[in-house]
Formats: sequence, structure tokens, C-alpha cells
Amino acid sequence: MKRPSACQSGEDRLIARYFKPLARHPGAYGLTDDAAILSPPAGHDMVLKTDAIVGGIHFFPDDPSDAVARKALRVNLSDLAAKGARPAGFLLSLALPTGVSERWLKGFARGLGADAKRYGCPLMGGDTDRTTGPITIAISAFGTLPKGTMVKRSGAKVGDRVVVSGSIGDAALGLMLRRSASRVRRWKLSAAMRKHLLGRYLLPEPRNAVAEILRAHASAAMDVSDGLVGDLTKLCSASGVAAEIEAARVPLSPAARKALAADGKLMETILTGGDDYEIVATVAPDRLTALRARAQAAGVTFTEIGEVTRGMGARFIGPDGKTLSFKRLSFSHF
Amino acid sequence: MKRPSACQSGEDRLIARYFKPLARHPGAYGLTDDAAILSPPAGHDMVLKTDAIVGGIHFFPDDPSDAVARKALRVNLSDLAAKGARPAGFLLSLALPTGVSERWLKGFARGLGADAKRYGCPLMGGDTDRTTGPITIAISAFGTLPKGTMVKRSGAKVGDRVVVSGSIGDAALGLMLRRSASRVRRWKLSAAMRKHLLGRYLLPEPRNAVAEILRAHASAAMDVSDGLVGDLTKLCSASGVAAEIEAARVPLSPAARKALAADGKLMETILTGGDDYEIVATVAPDRLTALRARAQAAGVTFTEIGEVTRGMGARFIGPDGKTLSFKRLSFSHF
Repeated sequence: MKRPSACQSGEDRLIARYFKPLARHPGAYGLTDDAAILSPPAGHDMVLKTDAIVGGIHFFPDDPSDAVARKALRVNLSDLAAKGARPAGFLLSLALPTGVSERWLKGFARGLGADAKRYGCPLMGGDTDRTTGPITIAISAFGTLPKGTMVKRSGAKVGDRVVVSGSIGDAALGLMLRRSASRVRRWKLSAAMRKHLLGRYLLPEPRNAVAEILRAHASAAMDVSDGLVGDLTKLCSASGVAAEIEAARVPLSPAARKALAADGKLMETILTGGDDYEIVATVAPDRLTALRARAQAAGVTFTEIGEVTRGMGARFIGPDGKTLSFKRLSFSHF
Repeated sequence: MKRPSACQSGEDRLIARYFKPLARHPGAYGLTDDAAILSPPAGHDMVLKTDAIVGGIHFFPDDPSDAVARKALRVNLSDLAAKGARPAGFLLSLALPTGVSERWLKGFARGLGADAKRYGCPLMGGDTDRTTGPITIAISAFGTLPKGTMVKRSGAKVGDRVVVSGSIGDAALGLMLRRSASRVRRWKLSAAMRKHLLGRYLLPEPRNAVAEILRAHASAAMDVSDGLVGDLTKLCSASGVAAEIEAARVPLSPAARKALAADGKLMETILTGGDDYEIVATVAPDRLTALRARAQAAGVTFTEIGEVTRGMGARFIGPDGKTLSFKRLSFSHF
């Protein structure tokens, strides 16, 4: 079902023009071989992750293409960060409908290249395909860490503190704004707050700066991509423990706080909405101060939100001392 | 743009039901962590490859789902084979439209599991997403080989012999049959020949059995996925050499030979049509016998089709001694 084309083929031209400049790692062979070489240093493990984003599902078709590219890479980098791995490289699989403009591609490659450089994660290889569907970007990202030190979901211990980075709920509220601009008025947001929430949806800020700190101090960690409640529930399940969280301690941005003041029901969106790309971790009480101080020095605030307990599941406690109940714990496409 | 669902989410159920049983490698953590660990043995490199297949582009929507899954994995395994790497594991990114049945998924997982086992290439992790477009399967496959021994495209030397595995053109002819069944009569094919060609399109046979043999004897190699002429041209370009091929020596199956006898114009389809997933390699004359004998013992026939020469490009010479000219060298989606 392929269409003929002259050689150098269109795919070759696309790769040479837009993606070869991003493949500076010697093991990428300038994208002129069938495969790439990427090996962890001696005594290190390779950490693998794949995540895709699809037009109309994970991003809006009219989002700027440089932001789309960066989001595609960052959602993977966020997992590497949570596992304590240092980014090493990535593979790109890009399916494009006909009619994607040179301008779109140029912006896409520019955004991808900027983040590849910023996070020290070069393009190692790729594949471009036609699709009759929306733009689909599947990235596999690779990181390295000293052998046996990956921070797992399964290490949480009863008595550990639960911490979360940055602020929660912004991206889910940003998505609501993106869908209906009238919410800006209803939530009484300033222009800066509106921009903050929209920006947090458009472009995650993965916490790669704290990867090594998590490895040194966290007993378990994962990135918050599907909503804090659901993701923490998964971490608890993998660790065979429960967690008790004070909802009021969950860190919110001024914008999210303002929106929540206007509509108290937004708490559920904030806690279960997803796309945060923050990190939830558990840490032994005697390591809490060190973790928080070192992370702060690296530019990332960790807030203590609760404690690991015996049992199952993550309980979120409201200001009245009652357990919050949610219609859903996390968002899913299925 | 996510839809809410109860926890355990639909995606979690999908993964637990169909894909967890395939993730037997300890580093896959039963698909219950954010990332996987896969490290090459000491003194070995990790080889990375990604390739995607898209419904309506690389496979027919009504192809059996077990074959679709196997094709998605095999197109990647074929590259690992050509590079001399031993399969080690893979990541799966699967985008599904609504309405894909449990039966389809069950067949898909069964096919994927069968080939993961057959080729010693376990599922390490994955990602499932909704799409408004066709089924899209992006796989990243990983292999290992002793450090510095990857068989590149760039090693061909003047005087080397050019060899190709198996038979060329079957899949391209199979695709033509798939599109128009009346060609069976026109090409005077037996039922077995028809089945052979259709089968070669539906399900490639990657040559992983000869990976180590290529590493020991080949000066350069790549897999033939976009057509022999175009792919050999790329190999020549990477090596800074030319190749002179006798078209009549290119190995054809009895079915392809029969079709060609009925319609001489099919030679262009055979040589440029792609989807062969055979291996084209160059080998020093004094290693030719060893390479062919060892490959034969491993069940793969390599046929000598020509020679590496000075210059640029791959010349295919017809029976009349004249250079064949092609409308195109290879197939491309762009």
C-alpha cells in the first residue's frame, strides 16, 4: 500500500532536512544507518520508556508544533525523572497525514531539537509514516542509572512521608480553559493565571533536575500523569501499602487556588485530572529534610501531603476530616 | 482531552489482560512500573530501532490481527538481524480507534506473544492510546552485540561481492495480488504460488538466524524493506562505492518467476517494490564461501548477485548487458 516516489525519497528528504541535525550522538550515525547504538556506561542500567501523543486526544490540532514536539518528548522524560534516570537518547516514530505543512515540520523539529539539547537527550533514530488519521508521535526514551538503583513504585514503607513536586491540577484546569474560555471569567482569573494554566497543559515541565535526588532519598516514586489520586493508588498497590493524604496540603498554584475558590467542585478535577507531570514520592521520615532541601536547591519544591499507612488504596481526607470520594480516580482513554 | 473512567482504568485492564502475560523479562516488572530496565551484558552494545505500521498504509484493516502484530515486531527484528544484533526486548506503542473488538486484541496479543517467544524478544513496556485514525503500532526493538561489532551500511569495499538472502519481490507481488485477485489468472499462478506471494506480504520472515554470521563475515549489510535497488543504493552511498548487479542473478521464488514470465514489466516491481525483509550484504571474496555455507546451515540461502565497484549508485544490468532504468528506486510514503 505504498506510493512510489523518486529517490532520494520524500521520507529521506524529510529526515535529512529536519531530523538529521538533531542526531548528533555518534551512535545515531547521522540517521544514515538502519539502527543506532546506545549503551549505558559500565556499571549502569538502561531505563526504557515509551509514550505516544495523538492529535485530537493529547493535544489540539492547532497547538504550535514546537510545543507538540516538546510535549511528546517531555511526557517520556518525566518518567525517566521519576525513576531516577539520567536521559540518554530517544527514538521518534512520527505518523503524518497528508497536508502537514513544511512550516509545521520546521517548528516541530525546532522544538524537538531545543528540548533534546536542554535535557541532554539526543535523537538516536526514527521512522516517519503516512497516516489517514491524526498526527501521531510515539517516542521511546532511554535513560541510565547505576545498576540496581531504579526508583520503583514498589518501595513505599509504612511510616514513609508522601511528597509531591510543584503544583497539582494546573494542566487539568488548563485543558478546561482551552475548551471553554468563558471559565476565565467564572473563575475570576487574572490574565497571568489564565496563561499559567494554559501553559501547564500545553507544555509539561518534567522534573529531571531531581532524578539523582530521588535515587538517593525516595523509597518509591512515579510521575503524576493520570491524576494524583489514581497514580498514588497505583504506587500504593505496587508497594502493598495504603496512603492517607490531607487534601488541603496538596500544593496548588495561585491560579488553581483562585479557580477552586470560585468553584469548590474543581477539587476533583485537580486531584484526578492528570497531565501534571509532577512526581509523587515516598520518603523515610529521616530523609525528608534532605530530599526537600536538595530538591529545592535544584529548583523543585516538594511538599509533604501525607503518610504511608497499612492497608490498601490512597485516602484523601477533606478539611472536615471525612474521606473524599471521587467519581473516578484517574483519567483513561478506554 | 481525556475521557474519565473508573479505576482500575480501561487502559489498565487492557494491559493486565493482554500484555502483562507477554512481559516475562524481570526488567519489565510485569508492566506495573513506569519504565523498564534492559541492559546489555558487559562488553556489549545496545542496538536500537523503531518502526511503525499503520492500518490502511502498511497492512489491510481486515488482515488477521495476529499477523498484524507479528509484522509490527518483525519489521523491527529484520533491522536487528541486518545489523548483527541478537534481539533483547521491545517496547510497544499501540493507538486504537474505538470499536476494536476484544477478539482483535486477543489475536493481536497472541501473535505478538508467539513471536516474542520465537525470537527471544520479550515485551518490556508499552503504551496504549485512543486515536480517531487507523490502528497504529509503533515498536522500538532492542538488540545486543559485542561492543563495536555492529554491521553498518558503510563498510562495503571495492571488490566485495554483493549477496542477498532468500528471494526478492514476493511481497510486492503479493501486495498486487491482494489488491486485484484477477492477477492470479493473468500470471498463471498455482494456488500454492498465490498463497506464497500473499503470505510473504502478510508476514515477513526476518533473518535473525544469520545475525552472528553477518557480524563474522559481512563488510556491510542492511535489510531490504524499501526495495532492493533503493536500499542497495543507500548502502553504496553510505560506503562511498558503487555496485554492479546482474538482474538475472537476483533470487526469485518460483511464484515470482512465473509472474515475471507472464509479464516482463514486473521486474521493476520485484526490484523496487519493497517489503522483502531480506538482507543485502557485501562480503570480501575470501569470506563469501564461509558466509554462504554457515547461513545455509542456519536455514538461509544467500545468493551472489554482483560486485562492489568504484563510483556511485547501484547499477542493475539486464540480460542484454544494458543498465536497467527504473521509474523509481524505492517506495516511499512521502
